Amino acid sequence: MKEEKVFKDPVHKYIYVQDKTIWDLINTREFQRLRRVRQLGTSYLTFHGAEHSRFSHSLGVYEITRKIISQFERNHYEGWPQEERLLCLCAALLHDLGHGPFSHSIESAFGTRHEDWSCKIVLGDTEVNRVLSQVSPDFPKKVAGVICKSYHEEIVVSLVSSQLDADRMDYLLRDAYFTGVNYGTFDLERILRVIRPYKGHIVVKESGMHAVEDYLMSRYQMYWQVYFHPVTRSAEILLHKIFARAKHLYEDNYNFSFMVDPILHLIQNKLSLEDYLLLDESVMQTMLTFWCSENDSILVDLCRRFLDRKLYKYSTFEESSNKRVIQRMEQAMREAGFDPIYYMEIDFPSDLSYDVYRPGESDEKLPILLLDHREHLTEITHKSEIVRSISGIHMGAHHIYYPEELRERLSTTAYADLWALLGEQD
Amino acid sequence: MKEEKVFKDPVHKYIYVQDKTIWDLINTREFQRLRRVRQLGTSYLTFHGAEHSRFSHSLGVYEITRKIISQFERNHYEGWPQEERLLCLCAALLHDLGHGPFSHSIESAFGTRHEDWSCKIVLGDTEVNRVLSQVSPDFPKKVAGVICKSYHEEIVVSLVSSQLDADRMDYLLRDAYFTGVNYGTFDLERILRVIRPYKGHIVVKESGMHAVEDYLMSRYQMYWQVYFHPVTRSAEILLHKIFARAKHLYEDNYNFSFMVDPILHLIQNKLSLEDYLLLDESVMQTMLTFWCSENDSILVDLCRRFLDRKLYKYSTFEESSNKRVIQRMEQAMREAGFDPIYYMEIDFPSDLSYDVYRPGESDEKLPILLLDHREHLTEITHKSEIVRSISGIHMGAHHIYYPEELRERLSTTAYADLWALLGEQD
Amino acid sequence: MKEEKVFKDPVHKYIYVQDKTIWDLINTREFQRLRRVRQLGTSYLTFHGAEHSRFSHSLGVYEITRKIISQFERNHYEGWPQEERLLCLCAALLHDLGHGPFSHSIESAFGTRHEDWSCKIVLGDTEVNRVLSQVSPDFPKKVAGVICKSYHEEIVVSLVSSQLDADRMDYLLRDAYFTGVNYGTFDLERILRVIRPYKGHIVVKESGMHAVEDYLMSRYQMYWQVYFHPVTRSAEILLHKIFARAKHLYEDNYNFSFMVDPILHLIQNKLSLEDYLLLDESVMQTMLTFWCSENDSILVDLCRRFLDRKLYKYSTFEESSNKRVIQRMEQAMREAGFDPIYYMEIDFPSDLSYDVYRPGESDEKLPILLLDHREHLTEITHKSEIVRSISGIHMGAHHIYYPEELRERLSTTAYADLWALLGEQD
Amino acid sequence: MKEEKVFKDPVHKYIYVQDKTIWDLINTREFQRLRRVRQLGTSYLTFHGAEHSRFSHSLGVYEITRKIISQFERNHYEGWPQEERLLCLCAALLHDLGHGPFSHSIESAFGTRHEDWSCKIVLGDTEVNRVLSQVSPDFPKKVAGVICKSYHEEIVVSLVSSQLDADRMDYLLRDAYFTGVNYGTFDLERILRVIRPYKGHIVVKESGMHAVEDYLMSRYQMYWQVYFHPVTRSAEILLHKIFARAKHLYEDNYNFSFMVDPILHLIQNKLSLEDYLLLDESVMQTMLTFWCSENDSILVDLCRRFLDRKLYKYSTFEESSNKRVIQRMEQAMREAGFDPIYYMEIDFPSDLSYDVYRPGESDEKLPILLLDHREHLTEITHKSEIVRSISGIHMGAHHIYYPEELRERLSTTAYADLWALLGEQD
Repeated sequence: MKEEKVFKDPVHKYIYVQDKTIWDLINTREFQRLRRVRQLGTSYLTFHGAEHSRFSHSLGVYEITRKIISQFERNHYEGWPQEERLLCLCAALLHDLGHGPFSHSIESAFGTRHEDWSCKIVLGDTEVNRVLSQVSPDFPKKVAGVICKSYHEEIVVSLVSSQLDADRMDYLLRDAYFTGVNYGTFDLERILRVIRPYKGHIVVKESGMHAVEDYLMSRYQMYWQVYFHPVTRSAEILLHKIFARAKHLYEDNYNFSFMVDPILHLIQNKLSLEDYLLLDESVMQTMLTFWCSENDSILVDLCRRFLDRKLYKYSTFEESSNKRVIQRMEQAMREAGFDPIYYMEIDFPSDLSYDVYRPGESDEKLPILLLDHREHLTEITHKSEIVRSISGIHMGAHHIYYPEELRERLSTTAYADLWALLGEQD
Repeated sequence: MKEEKVFKDPVHKYIYVQDKTIWDLINTREFQRLRRVRQLGTSYLTFHGAEHSRFSHSLGVYEITRKIISQFERNHYEGWPQEERLLCLCAALLHDLGHGPFSHSIESAFGTRHEDWSCKIVLGDTEVNRVLSQVSPDFPKKVAGVICKSYHEEIVVSLVSSQLDADRMDYLLRDAYFTGVNYGTFDLERILRVIRPYKGHIVVKESGMHAVEDYLMSRYQMYWQVYFHPVTRSAEILLHKIFARAKHLYEDNYNFSFMVDPILHLIQNKLSLEDYLLLDESVMQTMLTFWCSENDSILVDLCRRFLDRKLYKYSTFEESSNKRVIQRMEQAMREAGFDPIYYMEIDFPSDLSYDVYRPGESDEKLPILLLDHREHLTEITHKSEIVRSISGIHMGAHHIYYPEELRERLSTTAYADLWALLGEQD
Repeated sequence: MKEEKVFKDPVHKYIYVQDKTIWDLINTREFQRLRRVRQLGTSYLTFHGAEHSRFSHSLGVYEITRKIISQFERNHYEGWPQEERLLCLCAALLHDLGHGPFSHSIESAFGTRHEDWSCKIVLGDTEVNRVLSQVSPDFPKKVAGVICKSYHEEIVVSLVSSQLDADRMDYLLRDAYFTGVNYGTFDLERILRVIRPYKGHIVVKESGMHAVEDYLMSRYQMYWQVYFHPVTRSAEILLHKIFARAKHLYEDNYNFSFMVDPILHLIQNKLSLEDYLLLDESVMQTMLTFWCSENDSILVDLCRRFLDRKLYKYSTFEESSNKRVIQRMEQAMREAGFDPIYYMEIDFPSDLSYDVYRPGESDEKLPILLLDHREHLTEITHKSEIVRSISGIHMGAHHIYYPEELRERLSTTAYADLWALLGEQD
Repeated sequence: MKEEKVFKDPVHKYIYVQDKTIWDLINTREFQRLRRVRQLGTSYLTFHGAEHSRFSHSLGVYEITRKIISQFERNHYEGWPQEERLLCLCAALLHDLGHGPFSHSIESAFGTRHEDWSCKIVLGDTEVNRVLSQVSPDFPKKVAGVICKSYHEEIVVSLVSSQLDADRMDYLLRDAYFTGVNYGTFDLERILRVIRPYKGHIVVKESGMHAVEDYLMSRYQMYWQVYFHPVTRSAEILLHKIFARAKHLYEDNYNFSFMVDPILHLIQNKLSLEDYLLLDESVMQTMLTFWCSENDSILVDLCRRFLDRKLYKYSTFEESSNKRVIQRMEQAMREAGFDPIYYMEIDFPSDLSYDVYRPGESDEKLPILLLDHREHLTEITHKSEIVRSISGIHMGAHHIYYPEELRERLSTTAYADLWALLGEQD
C-alpha cells in the first residue's frame, strides 16, 4: 500500500493497516457482516454499553498481533519465523469470522460450531477466499489451519489461540471498556514487552511473571463479573427456549406467519453457507419482533419477555438439595400454569463457554510458560501462588431460573419449603 | 423505593435510580425499544465503536439532570422550583423516546419528526403513559409539554433542551467515548458547579466562563470530526436513496418479495403508533438484507452497497463551480450507466440536523447567559472572543457524492475538466 | 461556610470542603507542611512520576471519608452515629500529619513513630490544635484518640484505619495514578456502595465480595510492583546508611560544615515539636547536597550516590545460603575496600512497613467482614478462595544490596562461588 | 545497547531508551538534578497535584521526539535527514537542563536565562559534556546549537522548539495529567500522523488541520486555566519579593544567620556553574524555612506567607483606572503599615513567560504550516478561523496583588472609592 491506513479505535487508539491483503479482507462482504453480530451476545441486557460488534474485536485482535510481531522483529528475536507474518495477521483478523448471532444460544440449541463456519467461509466461494487466494493458492488452507489449530507451526497458532493470545487480550480490554467495568484493564504494553518466541513457543520472561498474574486476575474478575453474569445467562436461556419452542412448532407443522429462509433452514438443520452469511443479529431480532404476533401463546410470551427484558429471575441453591429443588419447582410450575420445559432452567456457570486457566485439563489451550535466566521453562502455576489459587477455584453456584411472577401465582404457604432452599437473588 | 438501584455506565460510572417512577419507566416496552436504535445512526460505518444505543444515552441524560438537580437542592438555590424535580427527570429520560431507526435518513425521506412521536408515545395507549399517569392524571401532558418545549416553566425546559442542556452534555461525552475520539471530553463536574437557577433561567456564574468555552469548543470539534463526517453522511445518503427507490417501486406496483407491515405503512405514509414502535434498526437492517434478493437491480445494488460498506465517494468543490459540476457529473453518470437520481447527491454539512451555537438565529435554542457578581446577565458571545469566533464560523464545503467506480468507467480524458473542479478526498 | 469550596484533584476530580473547620485545618501551618513531604518517600527514584505529596493524599483520605459518610446519611443507615461526622472528617484529614521526610528510613534509623508525632501536633501548641479546640475543648483529644485507635467508637476508627479504610483506598488509587502503573485501579464507587455500618463495624454486603476481592488484588499487585520495589528499597537503605554514618561522626566529635538544628537534634535524639515541624524533605535533600562537601569520604560518597542515583545493586539468594552469602560478601567488601557496615545490607521485603492482608496475626488491622442476607457476619477469607490465597502468600525473596562496582574491583575468579549463589537482577 | 530499557511514565505509559548515549545522559549528575526542580514552579500551590519535576518532562520530550523520528523513518519520508537522529534526541532530552528552581521568579529577580545555563552545562566541565563528547568531539557544540536555535538545520531545531514541538506537546499533556484538569488532552497520535518533513520544515498535512486546531485550543485553555492562574502568579510575586528583600538586606550588610554559597553568589550576581548546579528547589525551600528565623521582620513575614500559603489576594481593575488604583493602593498600604515595595504588585498575564500562538510577532517561534495536496504551504491562520480567533485574542485583565488583611486594617469608609474600582476575586 502506498500509505498506512488507520481506524480510530477506543481501545487501541488507532488500528494500523499496512498490508493490502488486510485492507482487502476488511472490505469483504463476509468481514463487514461481523458489524451485525455483537461481541458479547446478550450481555447488553446486563451492561447497556456492551453493544460493540465482533467487527471491532476482530480489528483489535489483528492490531495486538501486529504489535507483537513488530516487537519480535524490532528485537530480532531468533525464534520468530518471519515468513509467517502475513499468515498470523490474516488468521488473527479472521479467527471469529464464523460467529453467528447470539452464538452461545444458537450453538447450544442447534449444535453448530463457529470455528467450523470460520473455516467454511475461508475455504468456500467467498470474497474472503478470493482475497486470500491472491497471496498464494494454498494460503486460504493455511489460514484455516491456524484458525482450527491444526497448522504445523505451534508458534503461529499460539499467537492467535493460547492462554495468552491476542484474542483474549483484546476481548478483556474491549469488553471492560464497553461495559464500563474496570477489571479488565491489565497493562498490555508490559505483557508485550515480556513475551518472546522461544523454541517454537511463545514464552514469558520470568521477571514478567507479575504482569501475567495481573492479566490472569483481570480475566478471573471479568469471568465472574461480566461473562458469567446470571442476568446475561438468563437472557441466553430465554433465547434457547424460544428456539426450542419454534422447533417444536415446526415439527408440529405450525404455520409461521413470519419466516425467512435462513431461519427455516436453521430449524431444519440444513443451513447452507449462503444462509449462514445472511444470519445476523438483526434478522434474529426481527424474528423475535414479529413472532410476538404469532398464534402460539408460549412462543409469543417468550419473545415478548426477551424484547421487553422481562427476564427470568434466578436463585442459588446448594448442590445437596438439587433433586428436591427441581422436583418441587416443577410442581410449582405446573400449579401456576407454566410448562417447565420452557419456563425453568438449572445452570452451573462452569458449563458456559468461557474457560478459565486450568492447565492439565483436556481440551485446554496452550499453557503459559516462564523462561528463567538459565533458559529453563516452567509452567506458571509452579511459580505463582496467585495463579495456582485462581486455577484451582471451583466455579460457581447452582442457579435455577424461573419467571418472576411464579411466586405470586402460588399460595404463600404451599411452597415455603422450596423458597427456603433457595438463596437470595441480588 | 426501598433501595437505590444502579446501572453500570461507562461514561458516568454509575447511573443512580432513586424513584420508583423512573425505574418503572425504564422497564416499559417503549423505553426498552431504544436499545434497538443506535444513538449515532450510520456513524458506526465511520467509527466502528459507535454502536451505542439511544437507551444508554437516555439514561445518561437522566443521570446528568439528576446531578444538576441534586446540586441545586444541596445548595438551596432560591430560583429552583423543587416541586418540578420528578417532571424534569421523567422528561430527561423520555425526551428521545420517539427516535426511530436511522432518524436522519428516515425523517428526510418521509417527513416524520421524532419529537412528535415522543409526544405520541407519552400521550398514547402505552406502558409509558400508564406509569406516568400513576403520578397524576395530567402528568403525561406535562412531560409531553417539556419535551415539546411548550411547558410554562422555562427553567424546566432549559434543563432538557437549551444550549447547555443535559442532552448535549451527555451526547458529547458519550459519543466521544464510544467513537474513541477525545474531543468531547470537557469537564462535566466543573460545568455542574458553575450553573445555577436564576429568575427562571439556568445561568452560568461569570467566573465559570472558561468551563463553558471548553464545552463549546468540544462541541465544535465533535461536529466537525464526528457528526458532520462525510463518510457518515455518505451512508445516510445511501439509505435515503434506498427509500426513494422503494417508494418509486411501490408506486409502480412492484411486488416486494420481502415486506413487513411497518415498512409498508411507512412507505404509504400511514404509520400507526403501533407500527412505529415495531420499527427499529433490526427491522431496517433485515429489510436491506432481504431486498438484496429483489428483482430490481437498482434497489439490489443500493442495498448491497450499504451492507458491504461500498459507500459513495465524496469530493469537495467551490461554490462558484456549483452549476458546472452538477451538469457535467450528470452527463458522466449517464454515460457510465448510473441514474443520477439514485447515484449522485450534492451536500452542505450545514444542512445537517446538528446545530452549532448561533444565538440570534431563528429556531435557536435558549442561549447561554453569564451572571456577573453585580447580578447582570450577559449572553456569552459578548464576553468571550473564542465563543464569538466559533459562532460566526461558516460551516463546511460543498460535497458531491458518487460511486467510486464512476471514474474508471469513463475514458480518461473525456471528463478531465470535471475532475479538475473537484478537490481531493482524504 | 457560605459556599462549598473545591480543590482540583487528579484522582477524585474534585475535593469538596463543606465545613469551616476542615477549611481552617487545611490552611494551618502544620497541614501545609505536608506539601513538603512526598507520599512515597524514595519511590520517585524508581517511578519518576511518584513526586506527589502527603498533602494531596491527606485531602484524598478526607474526600473518601466524606463520600462514605454522605452515602451512609443518604441511605439513613441505622448503625451510623451521625454526631461523629466531623470527628471522622478531621481524623481522616489529619491522620498523616506527623509524617516526616522519608519516614521509613528515618523511623528505622532513629526509632521515631509518625503516629506519635501526629498526636503531638494535634495536642500541642499548634494552629491545628487551635482550630480543633474551637469545635469543643475536648475535640483535639478525640481526634488524637481516633488517630491512635484508642477512641471508643470502633466504627469511627475503622473508617480511618482498618483493612478497608479511606487511607488505603486513597493511596492505592493515588499511587497508581502518579506512578503510572494501572494495578491500583479498583472500582471505588462500587466499594462505597457495598459497605455499611452494622453493630459498630463497617461491613460489606456479601454480594459485594467480588468488589473487595478486586480491591485486595490491586493491593497485592501494588505491594509487589510498587511498595516493595527493590530499587526503592535500595534508596531507603542508602539514606539509612547516611544517617548511621552521620551519627557515628557526631559521636566521634566530627565538626560538620553544614548543620541545622533540627537535624542535629534528630541525631542527638532530642527533637522538639518545633524542630520536627521544620524537618521536611527539602531540608533533608539540602543536607545531602551540602554534605557532599564534608571531609569524611564515606559520608560524601554515600550522599553523592543518593543525589546522583547511583544506588546499590541488589541480588536474590536462597535462604539456605544465607550465612555463606553474608560471610563471603563481607570478605569481598573488605578486599575491594568497602566497609560492609555502610556498603552492604540484607533484606526481606516482608520486613517493610506495608502490610498485606493477614487476619489473625497480631498487630493486624480490623479485618473485613461480610454480611449475608441472613445477617450473619463472616470474615472474608472464609468465603473467598482468592483472598485466602493472597493472605497466605509468603512474602518475597532474600535480597542483598551492594555497590555495583564491587564486582569489577575483584579478580574474576576469586569470588565465583559467591556470584554463583546470587540470582539474577532484572 | 544489548536491550531496550524502559521508564514507566504516566503520560506516555513507557519511555523507550534504545541508545547508550541517551541512557548515559539520563544517568549524569546534571540530568538527575532535574528531579529536584518542579516543572511548574509555584503551580503546586494552586493545583496540589502539580508536583512533577523537569526530569519527567525532559524524558517525555525525548520520547515524543523519538516517536516522531520513528514515524518519519518508518514512512521513509524524503525530507528527513537521518543522520541527525541522535542529535535531535539528545537536544530534546537536554533542552531544559539549565532550568533552576522557580525559574520565573529567579529569572525575573536576577536576570538569569535558563537557555544560557543549558548551553553552559552542555559545553562546560560536566558529566553531560563527557558523554556527548564520546559521540564526537564537536557533538556537544551541535547539541548546544540546537538548544540555542542557532543550528543550521531548521528541521532539527523545529522538532525541539517551534509552535508544534515535542516540548509543548509533552508539557500540555503532562501538566494536564498532574494538575488533573482535562483541557490539555489533545490527540497526540493523530498529530504525529499528520506532520512530516518537507523542504527543511516540519509541516502539517492540510487534512490534519483540525487535529492542530484541537492542540491549539488545548493550549489556549491551559494558558488561561493553569499557566496564567493568578494564585500561581501570586506565589511567584511573593518569591520575587523575598529575593528583592534579601538583596536589599545584603546591600545593607545584614548578617544572615542562614546562608549557603550558591544563594549568596546568586544575590551577588556571581554564580559559577558549580554553584548553579547546587541550586535546586530543596535549597530554596530550606532557605525560606530558616529565613523565618531571621531578624528582619519583612523577610520573616514574606517567607512565612510563602511557606504557610498565605498568598496575596488579587483583584482585577480596568486599564483606565490604572493610575488611580496604584496611587490609592499605595496610600492604603502606608496607612495600614505595609511597605508597597514588598506588599503590592501590578500584573498583566501577558507579561508572563508563556506565549500563545501569535505568528508575525517578533521573537515568535517557527509558525505552523499546512501542506495541501497541490504541495502549497500556507500558514495555519490563513485557513483556520478558530486559530485566527485564538491568535488575535488580547490577553487578560489587569491584576493588583496585596495582603488579604489590608482591607480589615483600614476604616470601612476611607477607601470605599478604591474597593469600588476593583472587581471581584473568585
